[in-house]
Amino acid sequence: MENYAKIADTSKSRVVIIGGGFAGIELAKSLRDADVQVVLIDKENYHTFQPLLYQVATAGVEADSIIHPFRKIFKNQDNFYFRLAEVEQVYTENRVVETSIGLIKYDYLVIATGATTNYFGNKQMEENAISIKSLDDALELRNTILYNFEKALQIDDEEQRNSLMDYVIVGGGPTGVEVAGALCELRNHVFPKDYKELNFREMDIYLIQSGPQLLKGMSDEAGKKAQEYLESFGVNLWMNRRVKSYDGYTVTLDNGQTLLTRTLIWAAGVTGAPVQGIRPESVLKGNQLQVDAYNRVVGYEDVFAIGDIAAMITAEHPRGYPMLAQPAMQQGELLGYNLKSLMAGKPLKAFEYNDKGSMATVGRNRAVADLKLFNKEIKTQGFFAWLIWMFVHLISVVGFRNRLVVLVNWGWNYFTYDTGNRLIMGRKHVNIPVEETVPHKAME
Amino acid sequence: MENYAKIADTSKSRVVIIGGGFAGIELAKSLRDADVQVVLIDKENYHTFQPLLYQVATAGVEADSIIHPFRKIFKNQDNFYFRLAEVEQVYTENRVVETSIGLIKYDYLVIATGATTNYFGNKQMEENAISIKSLDDALELRNTILYNFEKALQIDDEEQRNSLMDYVIVGGGPTGVEVAGALCELRNHVFPKDYKELNFREMDIYLIQSGPQLLKGMSDEAGKKAQEYLESFGVNLWMNRRVKSYDGYTVTLDNGQTLLTRTLIWAAGVTGAPVQGIRPESVLKGNQLQVDAYNRVVGYEDVFAIGDIAAMITAEHPRGYPMLAQPAMQQGELLGYNLKSLMAGKPLKAFEYNDKGSMATVGRNRAVADLKLFNKEIKTQGFFAWLIWMFVHLISVVGFRNRLVVLVNWGWNYFTYDTGNRLIMGRKHVNIPVEETVPHKAME
Repeated sequence: MENYAKIADTSKSRVVIIGGGFAGIELAKSLRDADVQVVLIDKENYHTFQPLLYQVATAGVEADSIIHPFRKIFKNQDNFYFRLAEVEQVYTENRVVETSIGLIKYDYLVIATGATTNYFGNKQMEENAISIKSLDDALELRNTILYNFEKALQIDDEEQRNSLMDYVIVGGGPTGVEVAGALCELRNHVFPKDYKELNFREMDIYLIQSGPQLLKGMSDEAGKKAQEYLESFGVNLWMNRRVKSYDGYTVTLDNGQTLLTRTLIWAAGVTGAPVQGIRPESVLKGNQLQVDAYNRVVGYEDVFAIGDIAAMITAEHPRGYPMLAQPAMQQGELLGYNLKSLMAGKPLKAFEYNDKGSMATVGRNRAVADLKLFNKEIKTQGFFAWLIWMFVHLISVVGFRNRLVVLVNWGWNYFTYDTGNRLIMGRKHVNIPVEETVPHKAME
Repeated sequence: MENYAKIADTSKSRVVIIGGGFAGIELAKSLRDADVQVVLIDKENYHTFQPLLYQVATAGVEADSIIHPFRKIFKNQDNFYFRLAEVEQVYTENRVVETSIGLIKYDYLVIATGATTNYFGNKQMEENAISIKSLDDALELRNTILYNFEKALQIDDEEQRNSLMDYVIVGGGPTGVEVAGALCELRNHVFPKDYKELNFREMDIYLIQSGPQLLKGMSDEAGKKAQEYLESFGVNLWMNRRVKSYDGYTVTLDNGQTLLTRTLIWAAGVTGAPVQGIRPESVLKGNQLQVDAYNRVVGYEDVFAIGDIAAMITAEHPRGYPMLAQPAMQQGELLGYNLKSLMAGKPLKAFEYNDKGSMATVGRNRAVADLKLFNKEIKTQGFFAWLIWMFVHLISVVGFRNRLVVLVNWGWNYFTYDTGNRLIMGRKHVNIPVEETVPHKAME
């Protein structure tokens, strides 16, 4: 019994939630008045508001504004217990989770581990590309972008200098589109003042999309307008192209074309992040866990999955619901209700997705939105969509203080064209001589 | 010539400033209309507002709010050039600085490298203690404090648990006093809600001061009042004591007493951070460079030092001016004026310190201030001093946006007793089992 993690024994049923993303925190909130012990396990001590990670990466908002400590979110919820730990394996027969701080027993297990970047098995890409799935990723990208220019200042060779100033973004979904737009704004309004010695006409931004359209999950109108906006900003849009390889310097496309860049941003796909110990029959392609209409993992009585990790296959959604915040939050909330019903011996309620629509922002005054209001579809693009985007994201950022800080940042950026957070923090590259960062190919 | 760093050749006299603290940026600003090329070298790309570092460490303000990128500060100053680099050595005979990005020539060299933590040669202390001189230090302390409690939750042994919950602060200057006060506020108002399973009566905060009084550079009234405030907050004040050793677990004092803690915060002294290559005759005890009344390093024509690194010995100040922001900023500004005079063949102006007084805050509504206004000394303590402290620090934080963000944070903290930034970022300790962090002494 010694290797059990220490958690107060409340002699109540224990619901263990693995992962504090949108789904996990909505579930924990939904259980606030339940006669259970809620234990949330996460490897960070904070919830990340993922839709704004790209703004941290592009110096638009402060890192601290879009992350919120779990203990603070739940400080007034008495049945809530947080544990900072990594999950190693679940043993469903013994109803126990093995973690870095010891074993944790459960009565109900909820897997809400979300998704992770999908490199489709390309190890070389995984090593050399940067993704934007976590706060650490976003800060790494911010550091890389800023440090690239500091290095570019020291380089005479045009090809070498350009490889530091050019950016290739792979994937034309919301993240790819938003990052491309934000980088353009930095190029057009911020960097030329910061780095007067560099010629920003040399800075090229490429967005590579495998299909014929951007923002695949959205309407044709949204995709086309996003394309129009990005082109007007000066993004080089390469549609119907796939990236074959990237060695940290040369990007090779499926048609043999090449691009040179030090920074490839990979936003081309995600895959579920399952835990060890779930029976393989329940794990679908894409590493998602197949769940029934109550988010119960197929084949289990007491194991559930919600959010990006869960695939609820229906006639309408043969590949499950989209991996977005809305279905995750709705599943989390409903599962809280259902767990209470289950314990009370009442019938469960099947999940129904209330799709409120989706949106993406391309830049200042430019966004695209497909909204669903009162069963009506409203498609809008431009300034109005951008205002809605701002409003929705601002009210969604957890906590009044954070909302105010984000508002101050956005207001400042809007009126001054001057994003504030151009700081190279953490990881230091100062001592790396420029030469060492040049792969030998470039030395020929 | 190949190993010269690339900096635009403006064929103007070049002033190279090493270090972008208060002194360095005031000098660069003061040279804005001078017919020179100003080159600032720093190993970070941002200026740190050091007086508020302790608030980052204690989760009071966001890291991004108290740091400001150099390129942003000077984006409208045409003669300003920033280089992110580490200085390795200066060669004063050849008028050249060797840096991590190559050699940089100068016509006038200004050393503004500031001060660093002084462990007085105690290597063991240096390894085990945490200081608060840089942003990285402050974030490390924040991470450590928060992670200590996560670990304490898992420990049954009372001595072990207490070692994680107790804090020992060494040094009763402004930093020591401010950190002790801030930790008390966290203990009294924030942590008990975050960690309901811990008993915060177990959390002890010790402040150890070698002399008989706190805040040595300030008035007796200020020191006594600070002591009274800290005692009322529940800090264990140990006066006239010195720390002899600290192995990461046991603190041994000069009288043989011991304390157990995982976290010793060292705020007991600073020493100059000189650069290699300055003749030893000009380096005083305490690693400061001796300068004349014009901040010229003794023995040189074209090498200057300003701020904490400079010791301007006068009859009134036999050990130089105090290592504070005020003299640093004033020396920076005056040196800009003097360099312009020097180039114009005009007489130089000797430095005169305009002491506006000093202050320290102990906590909510409690600060001490010794002000000097119109040649009058005003000593005040309590709520009014605290308001002045808030006002002065708020207007001093560089940039309107940052001021607003700090204001939002402070306002939020004041009215809710709830500091926002309790995030464990960067360095991860998640995988370290608690046992491994226990030194063998404790295993006996």
